[in-house]
Amino acid sequence: EESVSGSASSYVDNSYLFLIGGIIVMLMAAGFCMLEAGLVRSKNAAMQSTKNVALYSIAGLMFWVIGYNIAYPGAWIGGDEGLKFFGMPAMDAFFWAGGDLSVESDAGYAPASDWFFQMVFVATAASIVSGTVAERVKLWPFLIFTAVLTAVIYPVVVSWEWGAGFLDTKWAFSDFAGSTLVHSVGGWAALVGAIIIGPRAGKYFGKQVHPMPGSNIPLAALGTFLLWFGWFGFNGASQLAAGTAADINSVAQIFANTNMAAVGGVLAAMITTAVLYKGKIDATMVFNGAIGGLVSITAEPLMPSMGQAVLIGGVGGILVVLAVPLLDKFKIDDVVGAIPAHLVCGIWGTMIVPATHGAAFMPNEAGDPNFIGQLVGVGVTGIFVVAASTVVWMLLKLTMGVRCSLEAEEMGLDKAEIGLEAYPEFTSG
Amino acid sequence: EESVSGSASSYVDNSYLFLIGGIIVMLMAAGFCMLEAGLVRSKNAAMQSTKNVALYSIAGLMFWVIGYNIAYPGAWIGGDEGLKFFGMPAMDAFFWAGGDLSVESDAGYAPASDWFFQMVFVATAASIVSGTVAERVKLWPFLIFTAVLTAVIYPVVVSWEWGAGFLDTKWAFSDFAGSTLVHSVGGWAALVGAIIIGPRAGKYFGKQVHPMPGSNIPLAALGTFLLWFGWFGFNGASQLAAGTAADINSVAQIFANTNMAAVGGVLAAMITTAVLYKGKIDATMVFNGAIGGLVSITAEPLMPSMGQAVLIGGVGGILVVLAVPLLDKFKIDDVVGAIPAHLVCGIWGTMIVPATHGAAFMPNEAGDPNFIGQLVGVGVTGIFVVAASTVVWMLLKLTMGVRCSLEAEEMGLDKAEIGLEAYPEFTSG
Amino acid sequence: EESVSGSASSYVDNSYLFLIGGIIVMLMAAGFCMLEAGLVRSKNAAMQSTKNVALYSIAGLMFWVIGYNIAYPGAWIGGDEGLKFFGMPAMDAFFWAGGDLSVESDAGYAPASDWFFQMVFVATAASIVSGTVAERVKLWPFLIFTAVLTAVIYPVVVSWEWGAGFLDTKWAFSDFAGSTLVHSVGGWAALVGAIIIGPRAGKYFGKQVHPMPGSNIPLAALGTFLLWFGWFGFNGASQLAAGTAADINSVAQIFANTNMAAVGGVLAAMITTAVLYKGKIDATMVFNGAIGGLVSITAEPLMPSMGQAVLIGGVGGILVVLAVPLLDKFKIDDVVGAIPAHLVCGIWGTMIVPATHGAAFMPNEAGDPNFIGQLVGVGVTGIFVVAASTVVWMLLKLTMGVRCSLEAEEMGLDKAEIGLEAYPEFTSG
Repeated sequence: EESVSGSASSYVDNSYLFLIGGIIVMLMAAGFCMLEAGLVRSKNAAMQSTKNVALYSIAGLMFWVIGYNIAYPGAWIGGDEGLKFFGMPAMDAFFWAGGDLSVESDAGYAPASDWFFQMVFVATAASIVSGTVAERVKLWPFLIFTAVLTAVIYPVVVSWEWGAGFLDTKWAFSDFAGSTLVHSVGGWAALVGAIIIGPRAGKYFGKQVHPMPGSNIPLAALGTFLLWFGWFGFNGASQLAAGTAADINSVAQIFANTNMAAVGGVLAAMITTAVLYKGKIDATMVFNGAIGGLVSITAEPLMPSMGQAVLIGGVGGILVVLAVPLLDKFKIDDVVGAIPAHLVCGIWGTMIVPATHGAAFMPNEAGDPNFIGQLVGVGVTGIFVVAASTVVWMLLKLTMGVRCSLEAEEMGLDKAEIGLEAYPEFTSG
Repeated sequence: EESVSGSASSYVDNSYLFLIGGIIVMLMAAGFCMLEAGLVRSKNAAMQSTKNVALYSIAGLMFWVIGYNIAYPGAWIGGDEGLKFFGMPAMDAFFWAGGDLSVESDAGYAPASDWFFQMVFVATAASIVSGTVAERVKLWPFLIFTAVLTAVIYPVVVSWEWGAGFLDTKWAFSDFAGSTLVHSVGGWAALVGAIIIGPRAGKYFGKQVHPMPGSNIPLAALGTFLLWFGWFGFNGASQLAAGTAADINSVAQIFANTNMAAVGGVLAAMITTAVLYKGKIDATMVFNGAIGGLVSITAEPLMPSMGQAVLIGGVGGILVVLAVPLLDKFKIDDVVGAIPAHLVCGIWGTMIVPATHGAAFMPNEAGDPNFIGQLVGVGVTGIFVVAASTVVWMLLKLTMGVRCSLEAEEMGLDKAEIGLEAYPEFTSG
Repeated sequence: EESVSGSASSYVDNSYLFLIGGIIVMLMAAGFCMLEAGLVRSKNAAMQSTKNVALYSIAGLMFWVIGYNIAYPGAWIGGDEGLKFFGMPAMDAFFWAGGDLSVESDAGYAPASDWFFQMVFVATAASIVSGTVAERVKLWPFLIFTAVLTAVIYPVVVSWEWGAGFLDTKWAFSDFAGSTLVHSVGGWAALVGAIIIGPRAGKYFGKQVHPMPGSNIPLAALGTFLLWFGWFGFNGASQLAAGTAADINSVAQIFANTNMAAVGGVLAAMITTAVLYKGKIDATMVFNGAIGGLVSITAEPLMPSMGQAVLIGGVGGILVVLAVPLLDKFKIDDVVGAIPAHLVCGIWGTMIVPATHGAAFMPNEAGDPNFIGQLVGVGVTGIFVVAASTVVWMLLKLTMGVRCSLEAEEMGLDKAEIGLEAYPEFTSG
């Protein structure tokens, strides 16, 4: 029987963390799919389901061909350092030849396990956009936007921080699992998309907001639970190591804090809506409260105590409830409420990080997270993603168009673009 | 590269067991949600979904603030032993300050991993109640009951056994993963709730039982599969350690037995209903048969052979089929069949434990599980939970009322209490 | 504190792989259930859900009583070698007595973890049949076929290869995780069933094909994601070991390749249907494209580079799109498209294996995978499963009948055979 050295054991533990964390996060793709399919009207539910399968696929392809090497320059195994930008080495090393699997990587974990774990993160960013622009965006332009987002926009932002770029080295920007890097990136891209594409037909009449209720609330609840479940992988495996007592203690603390932040988000959203709406709670706000709480803790799920996690998530839940009508006021039509949950709470979660790290105001010698650094990170991410998304959405609008015809919108995208209905027997439509 | 000692490896393995087991059990919350949303009528399906998200949140909050310290007096990390009751040390140690994560806990696993794993158990107990009292209980009284159940009632019972209390030390009561401590606790609370709240309007006319079929059977099937999946974490990680060959062998045996008990439950329910109903099997009985089988093996999933597991689960499946009409006879309206599956099978599973442990009748010097000890455990649990639940439900009834108005019940709780419908386009309601 | 030797650590890691992989694959049962419940008409959706719960149960029972010992002769722990065939030792060792759990098995992993992992594979094969013959097969004959498939037919084929039989030793047949052994076995059995049972009433009029659209596309999307998720366990844990750097590197590579093959299948199906159907993509083809891609990489998920995985999966996606109308041409009514995805792609995936292994043509001294060996494996599997399935389906047809009455088919199997409807409030049926 083979003997395993301590380091091999740690190597296995670390890789397991990425792999198990990765597939758990992969299930978030199903979570987004269910949440969105449940919150659109039935005439668009098959299209929304199809888009979610397609975007997860495109994210994986693009992040492999180009994105990973932009995000982590020099991080890819094997190959020539100088060629590692813009996908060429990925093509070289992985298109026709796999790596040598018999040796331990110096990184301390299986290289492909890291790639896999990073890939499911980019898919998450893409999923956020999908829900906001649902029910009126055309399929192919949406998929092209997804390709650019996952190949370039997201990876560039990630390179600034997790890729050891200037946000990390100059500003001590801190974003443990991606409140800004993943969630606000997706949120900014969604916001720009919602503005450029415009609201659904009939959503706004003057100052009136016409409610367009989701067609399948139990599916939305399922989506919420699947996202919550996936978040344990999202935050927990972002500890990046599990082979020592200190690391696994940290992973455990992250699990507990992640759960408590979602708890805070749910309860805050329940109480806030009960107060605002005279005792009636709003089910979709409760679901988005959970997500808002989860996004809020994602920038720092390790340092807070469990009580602080409840509060951080709770503020996230309140922000969701307040931001939804605010978007409507500006006639920004976010079908599933992704902008409040991912963008607003992503900013909140990022800005509160220094509070559990000594509350430094400026970048300092110790390299501690600080409010200015967080603000810079949030700001440059916002500016870049808004600019890049505007260019891409506008180019798409000017060339192939981003919005389906009014006829298609009224008929529903299921019939118009994919030729089958989500529930052919349940509706007279 | 860091070297890891054997004990660190075991520490990591044990903690992994809790964390992975924990999130798998967390997915049971989604399973209960789908099962219940599928088995209520469509006019209550959004409410039922919302309740399940809310109860999972409340269970987590209350078990952290109070419950864990009641259940495991002295078990909390850090802090002053004398203050560890009723949540104060939890407040102290975890509300504003996290523990020291850099050291191995003497317990042999990451402390927060244990908390997390225990927390998802209490959520399970709360989920059981939710299904039984569906379609007529008011939201807020239900949530308050959930808070008391998870903060006090469940933890007190757990303290008697897993917290090294009198059932463990005096009676050698044995309940590996909670047939009694989790499932019958939830079941008793549900039973009392069903009696105090009363049956749904129109359910019983004299001796006639009016069927109120579930609105979405595929969701109920999904819920069943998710519960089955989650049970591998529920029973498997209750081995509490995985760092040695003996421990992982045991976890593996538990997985196999857990599966076979569910298999027994399914097949027994199928055959029994086919015999009773002239060849037609009853789908919801089959689903509850799986759950009944799983509950039955939960008190002892390790010692039985796989064949014994099939039989133990099979009896559970039969009990489910027999208990459902019995409840109807007493006009106890259990919407999803949770009382047969969790309470009746929980008692059965607990009482059969000694049969695979040498079949001792009385408590003995060896400390083996014995029938009298099991009976005492089942009995005191029942008496305490019935008494406590009666007090809480009655207080709620006398103060805020526990039951929605007849108008609300007819309209459906979706419209009445949360202001949106589960399926606005599928029903004319 | 207990010290753990390196080999114990490896033993734990290996067993964890089987157990976690196993439950992930178990969730594929839920995936098949959702896919099939979503793709049948609503009048058969409760029946389809029930069948999936039942078949998973029967597969587990039969593989334990008989199948495992046929598949792996001599592999069962304990007991007399000479009696290990046809279930007797399983009865002996496991019906009334469990194994000794305190010792490390020489196999290097917990014995029950291997049994569990193998069991969920046989359930997969059975699930494939279920979807194809949906909406007109009678419940009990279907379940009896499932019992024979999982007790005998599948295990015999497995014994030829994974049980170290002639395909392994004489032909160097290579099928890493079961493109042929699992997926084409299920596919052949489904094909024979579809032919013997005949198409649904009204499906074919002369050369016209009457579309019978699925009733719940979001559930089918959920099923696709759950299958995709489960496949990481299916392929990843088929590495069979995870205790060394080389092994975990391989598991990681398998995860990445498995994902990329599904990506290829999705995108190829999207593009192909968009081209064939004038810009409209076909949602169910996209879902089956993912599955086809996954089946295609299952015979060899380790050796290909990620680029090759995309191509192998992509061809699978195209094959799915082309095979569906081909079946219709022959009036073979495959309700969910399981034959294209599992049988056609299973053959494709198996035949392409040598291309990533040195592309040997004939069996050779090095024992490399070779095209002739693969052809023999595919061929004998096909011949045996077709012959055996024909005998079983015909015996069932001649004795109890395999097809429900035309009245039952028109009424729907939900009402006819299980006495409740899947969605009683959504349809006027």
